Amino acid sequence: MDPTAERRYVLTLSCPDTTGIVARIAGFLADARGWIVEAGYHSDPGTGWFFTRQVVRADSLPFEADELRSRFGAVAAELGAEASWTVTDTGTPKRAVVLVSKEAHCLHDLLGRVAAQELPMRLDAVIGNHDSLGDIVRAHGVPFHHLEFPPPGSRAVEKGKTFGELRELVGAPDVVVLARFMQILPPELCREWAGRALNIHHSFLPSFVGARPYHQAYARGVKLIGATCHYVTPELDAGPIIEQDVIRVDHGDTAVDMVRRGRDIERLVLSRGLRWHLEDRVLVHGNKTVVFH
Amino acid sequence: MDPTAERRYVLTLSCPDTTGIVARIAGFLADARGWIVEAGYHSDPGTGWFFTRQVVRADSLPFEADELRSRFGAVAAELGAEASWTVTDTGTPKRAVVLVSKEAHCLHDLLGRVAAQELPMRLDAVIGNHDSLGDIVRAHGVPFHHLEFPPPGSRAVEKGKTFGELRELVGAPDVVVLARFMQILPPELCREWAGRALNIHHSFLPSFVGARPYHQAYARGVKLIGATCHYVTPELDAGPIIEQDVIRVDHGDTAVDMVRRGRDIERLVLSRGLRWHLEDRVLVHGNKTVVFH
Amino acid sequence: MDPTAERRYVLTLSCPDTTGIVARIAGFLADARGWIVEAGYHSDPGTGWFFTRQVVRADSLPFEADELRSRFGAVAAELGAEASWTVTDTGTPKRAVVLVSKEAHCLHDLLGRVAAQELPMRLDAVIGNHDSLGDIVRAHGVPFHHLEFPPPGSRAVEKGKTFGELRELVGAPDVVVLARFMQILPPELCREWAGRALNIHHSFLPSFVGARPYHQAYARGVKLIGATCHYVTPELDAGPIIEQDVIRVDHGDTAVDMVRRGRDIERLVLSRGLRWHLEDRVLVHGNKTVVFH
Amino acid sequence: MDPTAERRYVLTLSCPDTTGIVARIAGFLADARGWIVEAGYHSDPGTGWFFTRQVVRADSLPFEADELRSRFGAVAAELGAEASWTVTDTGTPKRAVVLVSKEAHCLHDLLGRVAAQELPMRLDAVIGNHDSLGDIVRAHGVPFHHLEFPPPGSRAVEKGKTFGELRELVGAPDVVVLARFMQILPPELCREWAGRALNIHHSFLPSFVGARPYHQAYARGVKLIGATCHYVTPELDAGPIIEQDVIRVDHGDTAVDMVRRGRDIERLVLSRGLRWHLEDRVLVHGNKTVVFH
Repeated sequence: MDPTAERRYVLTLSCPDTTGIVARIAGFLADARGWIVEAGYHSDPGTGWFFTRQVVRADSLPFEADELRSRFGAVAAELGAEASWTVTDTGTPKRAVVLVSKEAHCLHDLLGRVAAQELPMRLDAVIGNHDSLGDIVRAHGVPFHHLEFPPPGSRAVEKGKTFGELRELVGAPDVVVLARFMQILPPELCREWAGRALNIHHSFLPSFVGARPYHQAYARGVKLIGATCHYVTPELDAGPIIEQDVIRVDHGDTAVDMVRRGRDIERLVLSRGLRWHLEDRVLVHGNKTVVFH
Repeated sequence: MDPTAERRYVLTLSCPDTTGIVARIAGFLADARGWIVEAGYHSDPGTGWFFTRQVVRADSLPFEADELRSRFGAVAAELGAEASWTVTDTGTPKRAVVLVSKEAHCLHDLLGRVAAQELPMRLDAVIGNHDSLGDIVRAHGVPFHHLEFPPPGSRAVEKGKTFGELRELVGAPDVVVLARFMQILPPELCREWAGRALNIHHSFLPSFVGARPYHQAYARGVKLIGATCHYVTPELDAGPIIEQDVIRVDHGDTAVDMVRRGRDIERLVLSRGLRWHLEDRVLVHGNKTVVFH
Repeated sequence: MDPTAERRYVLTLSCPDTTGIVARIAGFLADARGWIVEAGYHSDPGTGWFFTRQVVRADSLPFEADELRSRFGAVAAELGAEASWTVTDTGTPKRAVVLVSKEAHCLHDLLGRVAAQELPMRLDAVIGNHDSLGDIVRAHGVPFHHLEFPPPGSRAVEKGKTFGELRELVGAPDVVVLARFMQILPPELCREWAGRALNIHHSFLPSFVGARPYHQAYARGVKLIGATCHYVTPELDAGPIIEQDVIRVDHGDTAVDMVRRGRDIERLVLSRGLRWHLEDRVLVHGNKTVVFH
Repeated sequence: MDPTAERRYVLTLSCPDTTGIVARIAGFLADARGWIVEAGYHSDPGTGWFFTRQVVRADSLPFEADELRSRFGAVAAELGAEASWTVTDTGTPKRAVVLVSKEAHCLHDLLGRVAAQELPMRLDAVIGNHDSLGDIVRAHGVPFHHLEFPPPGSRAVEKGKTFGELRELVGAPDVVVLARFMQILPPELCREWAGRALNIHHSFLPSFVGARPYHQAYARGVKLIGATCHYVTPELDAGPIIEQDVIRVDHGDTAVDMVRRGRDIERLVLSRGLRWHLEDRVLVHGNKTVVFH
């Protein structure tokens, strides 16, 4: 993250919609002399739900993050039992762990972005099942853990053991990034990491769920290929979508060309989705996201 | 416009930034039981200026547009002498006049969009210097005025006379659309229509100001061509930019191909800019715009 | 079409790949002193098939289109029984018929493009089941046929009768454009019009096949919506794809907003696909297309 | 580069256009039993010049690259004294040197792509004036040279000495990549490296030439920012353009945000332009490029 950036508090809230919510929150911040530098609101007519994200200059408030949390929690409580909210402090960098398999392009991209201070996070560890990536990761000053995954067809008990080790190694970061991690997480890990495990799927979902999406795209003869960053849920490739983008292909592109060309869009989509998650721009409701840009 | 759409009031405000503005406006609307369906805020660190756009369901307020104007004006007055604000009523459609020359593709596009009820406006008239367009315009139920422009090199007095007629024909609509209108407006008309005359320039400004921008683009060998929708000001192609977009070209495209292919992006960019203007999404400050999407 | 454009012959060929095909064709054209202004080649490693499109200045050849056809047919015959080829003359405009239902935005767009001479075709007729579109179509100098379709649930014999009338009205044009034509063509019409009936589907296929794709897209929470231009085949929305594109949406867009915003991309994608078809840029092989840009 | 890729010869040729060139080249390749896997042709009506690029499977020819060069040279000689041509062998990887200053994001991106075997090149060296980048570069197995540049305002003789050292360090690679290298090359180096020095400029040229283009873009209020990959020539930011792309910004983006967000498009545009250069897809004519995709 950029050490010169001004320290800020980021507040998010979602609750059933009614009149007066904006006034209540804005009034609360105004009373505390909070200087709002960004404010996003969304009223969802489909669900009757309200969402907001507010960014306040830390030095404009006469108290610290914990006090802000306590006071904002009281405001949220007035808005009903279903209200959910967060307050984060940009002075406390988020902590991230990256999981990777053989395809390392997203990992390389993330390491470059961390080195260039483009992402507001501290990279605690990279965990991969190919030892060869260790040297580069460590050159970036990041610990690398090698964790061999049992081959397809292994017994459930063996898989369970490995995922147990993975769970231990990951710990409790703010975000777990599946950077082309080609293992399917067991449902209990999906639930434990709900709302903070991001995956990059190499297709424009819901097209081409599952394995070898570029080969599926080639077979169908589509004219654009895409990538999707979404939260991991127990159902494969079906979690709330954070970001998607596409790139043009044509008849001259083989499935192998698509694999290579798609990397550009995977890198972009994952890094955008991750950045928005880290900046608390993404609010999940049901199986959809509100993303405050 | 879509006659089934719910009636709404749109409030915009810009003023020097300070704490408490959001609370003041939100409190005002909450006190009146206004149901906010869209809200955009922007704090500009460069200029120290604050901008907002609020959309309220008309039936949620216990009074009419005039009363809302009067009350909101009082709130704005508290925010300082520099504050500027508007309140519009989507139940009163905006009125538009389109100016066109020989290149009719943007006109055709706008007529199609009006017919499809995509633009929240009433098209009062089309004014062009080629009579041939009259039949189609009238088939759309829109009056067409033929106004011959003096040829290049004509005396100032003659030009002045024609622009005087143009001014009379245009009247006082909410927006004057220069849909590839190849005449340079005199400074006094630019000033009279300030903030409500939209032009489409067929380049990605500030590149290729002035005449034959596609030919300039071809000569430079750029790989993308673009279009820019901006407010008209006395300085040619230098007004506040509302919207821009680009399209890919390659070595196989001649300048004539670019002229044809560029039309797609001109149509899109003009119609987007126009829609945002009609929906009061565009706030001008200095030579820049804030566009609330 | 543009009457000032230079007259050209367009040759296309597809056949099993082998060495020497390019030399054979190029040699044939060189022997005839043909001036090649565009040439596209594609060798498909997946199918082992070869595709080419050549554009020759008509005035560079010492004979007419029929003679060119006869000579080129002889060359193609050497390349095997599976070779298929065409020779068209840009001096003979293609003839088109447009089918439309209630949603008229693609029709309006096509009419505007025909008026602006952007499409190399003559529009023979528009056939629709809403009489209200007749006036505008006729103002463009194009015949309009009103054909009422039996309501859903009607008996097969009644439907068959209407599609029989449709078949008669359409006749034998070079292209039948389903410009948001909301009727499913019977298999026998799909087969009769194979390779010359273009449909615009309002999703990024293969996502969201069938009815109400924008509502499906809204429900899934995708971040981009798209449109697909494809050849009609008996299987719904499954024919060879000619062109696709997408547009960004966000959480603020309702399904109704997507319907409106998607029109922009439907217009673009249909007009591009149609133009490429008219310029003989699209070669179909199996369920995929080669598009020479 | 991908070691599993099939070995190929890439032929390029440009010469004044006339009938029969395609036949001559195709005939030459057919006589040698060459299996053409890609072929691009371009006839430029503006300059009357002809361009082609052909890719042939190496194992389809009964002789080696040198013999192919000798024979193809003879064919080119028939096409006139102005004809220029190249024959390269994908089995001999191109050699690259990267120059970098403080902004390291393009360097990081290139290192990641080299590690992922996405670029058909061997990275011989990275030369930078910040020693801090050395560790990561070396972890990628690439030599790093630290070369301090004299501060602005230094005497010409001192600058000349440093550029002399740079010239020595660079040697004679196939491509010199200025990956956000913030020094202006002296004219003699531009000439020596003509056609093989690639720069990435952080604007959509010709807009915003020179220093701090994002700040210029911010001041003008554009709605898209871009990047341009071009060959270096003695005139600043004016060389032949290879590739450009843009990314959307809005009123919420400060100049600093644009700097950060623009990196995404700089990385993409530079890596695309570099790849096309390495694959001999870029032919320069005057101040423009033909890029065979």
